[in-house]
Amino acid sequence: MKFFEVHETRAVIELIEQHYQPLTRVAKVSLYEAFDRVLAEEIRATENVPGFDRSTVDGYAVRAQDTFGASDSLPAFLDIAGTIEMGQAAGPISRGQAKYIPTGGMMPNGADAVVMIEHVEEIGSLLNVFKQAAPNENVIKKGEDLHDGHLIFRRGHRLQAVDLGVLAAAGVFQIPVFAKPIVGILSTGDEIVPPETDSLQPGQIRDINAVTVGAALQSMGCEVIYGGIVRDDYQEYLRRAQGLFAQVDMLVMSGGSSVGTRDYTVKVMETLGKPGILVHGISIKPGKPTILAKAGGKPVIGLPGHPVSAMVIFDLFVRRIVNRLYDRTSHPFDPRIRARLSRNLPSAVGRSDYIRVRLEERDGEMWAVPIFGKSGLISTLAESHGIVEIPAPKEGLLQGEWVAVNSFVRERGIVSEEEDLSGGHAAQGSTEEAPGCC
Amino acid sequence: MKFFEVHETRAVIELIEQHYQPLTRVAKVSLYEAFDRVLAEEIRATENVPGFDRSTVDGYAVRAQDTFGASDSLPAFLDIAGTIEMGQAAGPISRGQAKYIPTGGMMPNGADAVVMIEHVEEIGSLLNVFKQAAPNENVIKKGEDLHDGHLIFRRGHRLQAVDLGVLAAAGVFQIPVFAKPIVGILSTGDEIVPPETDSLQPGQIRDINAVTVGAALQSMGCEVIYGGIVRDDYQEYLRRAQGLFAQVDMLVMSGGSSVGTRDYTVKVMETLGKPGILVHGISIKPGKPTILAKAGGKPVIGLPGHPVSAMVIFDLFVRRIVNRLYDRTSHPFDPRIRARLSRNLPSAVGRSDYIRVRLEERDGEMWAVPIFGKSGLISTLAESHGIVEIPAPKEGLLQGEWVAVNSFVRERGIVSEEEDLSGGHAAQGSTEEAPGCC
Repeated sequence: MKFFEVHETRAVIELIEQHYQPLTRVAKVSLYEAFDRVLAEEIRATENVPGFDRSTVDGYAVRAQDTFGASDSLPAFLDIAGTIEMGQAAGPISRGQAKYIPTGGMMPNGADAVVMIEHVEEIGSLLNVFKQAAPNENVIKKGEDLHDGHLIFRRGHRLQAVDLGVLAAAGVFQIPVFAKPIVGILSTGDEIVPPETDSLQPGQIRDINAVTVGAALQSMGCEVIYGGIVRDDYQEYLRRAQGLFAQVDMLVMSGGSSVGTRDYTVKVMETLGKPGILVHGISIKPGKPTILAKAGGKPVIGLPGHPVSAMVIFDLFVRRIVNRLYDRTSHPFDPRIRARLSRNLPSAVGRSDYIRVRLEERDGEMWAVPIFGKSGLISTLAESHGIVEIPAPKEGLLQGEWVAVNSFVRERGIVSEEEDLSGGHAAQGSTEEAPGCC
Repeated sequence: MKFFEVHETRAVIELIEQHYQPLTRVAKVSLYEAFDRVLAEEIRATENVPGFDRSTVDGYAVRAQDTFGASDSLPAFLDIAGTIEMGQAAGPISRGQAKYIPTGGMMPNGADAVVMIEHVEEIGSLLNVFKQAAPNENVIKKGEDLHDGHLIFRRGHRLQAVDLGVLAAAGVFQIPVFAKPIVGILSTGDEIVPPETDSLQPGQIRDINAVTVGAALQSMGCEVIYGGIVRDDYQEYLRRAQGLFAQVDMLVMSGGSSVGTRDYTVKVMETLGKPGILVHGISIKPGKPTILAKAGGKPVIGLPGHPVSAMVIFDLFVRRIVNRLYDRTSHPFDPRIRARLSRNLPSAVGRSDYIRVRLEERDGEMWAVPIFGKSGLISTLAESHGIVEIPAPKEGLLQGEWVAVNSFVRERGIVSEEEDLSGGHAAQGSTEEAPGCC
């Protein structure tokens, strides 16, 4: 077996950008199916918006020059030549004429401004105008909002709710999006049993990673194929991994924690295709025994078996790989939350540490309270809001220091100290977790 | 018709909390269907996690007292009594014995600590232990992570990916969640045509709000029933509104912009049930002509017709109403992004102004660049990242001031000035939009 060096976080991110390529499968979907999908082509308007000159107020459509000089003391006098109906083409007006126009109504030919209803007085068919209008006042011109050919969104943009409205306005209904990446999940380990197992035998634990990783992948728009659990048998492992690999765009293997399973995972990943393993071990904690490979162009990921480690690795690296598959150009805002650290956090120089924290608001300021627990208790996932990085070159972080909390939950109530749900893991223990565990 | 006073933003929020009640329909879903659903009951663990004492390292399970005093120079000598297999019950050990145990393996009866493999030497069946172990060292005790009965999540919690893993670990597979709110959308106005209309006639515009509001509601977990478009005919409007109202938990009416349609909307809302209209007009811009009603316990919302105004109102008020229907206790973090304002923004005292902004990073600092455009051009939705509030008591905000940007898109690329997609609406015009328009 080759010797693999342990990589630093930044180096791993560079390898991801360098090795994994976007999927090119494109699907056409309707407006109603396009929410949260990623554009496979740039989108340009195919018509002018609005398609006609349009009033932005209730009032009278006029020729602006007919109102020049009009004031409260010296109104302009115009002839009322009719009413414009919503959704109808408007007949023209001539010099000295005005037509009533509702908000959104189509401007008649000959008119170039709208006088608001507040600034006129109707006397029979005569209109007194008490305020002069400038050309184009209270009018949106044809194509002013979006002109035919206007670049609206770039390839790689992920469509939000408001964006679908813009597409509808622009007359774009069949939308080219990237096909959803298909991701297979295969769990390994003799101690692992399906998550929905009712009653555990001594020594067994449920397959947590299939559940958390599966849901996180689906929330990113992936289709997930659950490959089940493989026992510690190399031939069976290889056969099942190859079968699943053939059906997917990316394969995630969640490793058992025993040495035997970890060795098998490496061998299986090497067998799936070239160039094989890119990263074997990352100098971070938790999450060190992570493996990244590429086989026949597809990413193959070996996640640590421990659920807490697996979620940290998912957030740091797997999200990035999925975004690569989508060729995303619109990355989310930096989703990190700024908070002050509630206590000193020591760390080893040369290793990035990721510490789970709970957020608490104290006197209007956000504080990050580290959550410990030996070997990353699963219950800490239920109470943490996110993770704080102690970068590799640092010896630690100081109490009161501002940190950026990378939140892996989109929402979670901020619990005050009195109603703590944790059972008290916070601020117990130390940052040192058992080295073999995660 | 009654006289309605225009409400301030804070007063409207209070009315929402006071008048709209959570739905009580509960559904049981599986782990794989529970992502992003809201818990209808509190959840407690139904078993101990782990279900057995468990090693957190690869090493030897021992009685801690047999290792007391052991050191590099004076090792303790133990008998190797076998190997513990993953996922299997472990036989007991006696005084002076040790068993090999993999990470995650079940501790044998009699053992209370694990010595890491790095600190032992195997000589045949003899084990030299070079470091003493404290009781419980490298062991997670049965129930230490989650004990049977442990409160995991409260009613109203929205389930994230990691949470599903915690539920699986705790043996909770059938999950009581609130049924999805069913929301009807009815659009009105003679000028409005279905969004997918290929070719517009003069004076027509597409139904943008059904698309944006529908997608935003679905992203919050609602089921949406599209009720189509009603012409400006009171009897037809009433009949269609009543028909849709009977099928839904909440009705959203998107008003046409003409005065006639707006009057009809008020009358229809009054007819649907008691107590009827709660809010008619809000002192904000854009979004003033918003109507909130309650009929037979159900929220009924009259949104402004203009798409930009409708999205602002959706974000400020409709989101809150949907969350009320879910009885959410876990609110998202404050999702606002802190940024500095790129220019002065004047405002009228006594009215809350909501200004769309684009975010730009300049020298590592985030800046909010106001986007204007008369009467809220739809294209401004495609380029804005969110909105900034100028609170009612303020005369405006100053250039360079720090503001909180309420982001109504979950993600959007931060565009540098060179590759501006906007066509140049930013920093044009003034904050004053035509008063009749939105």
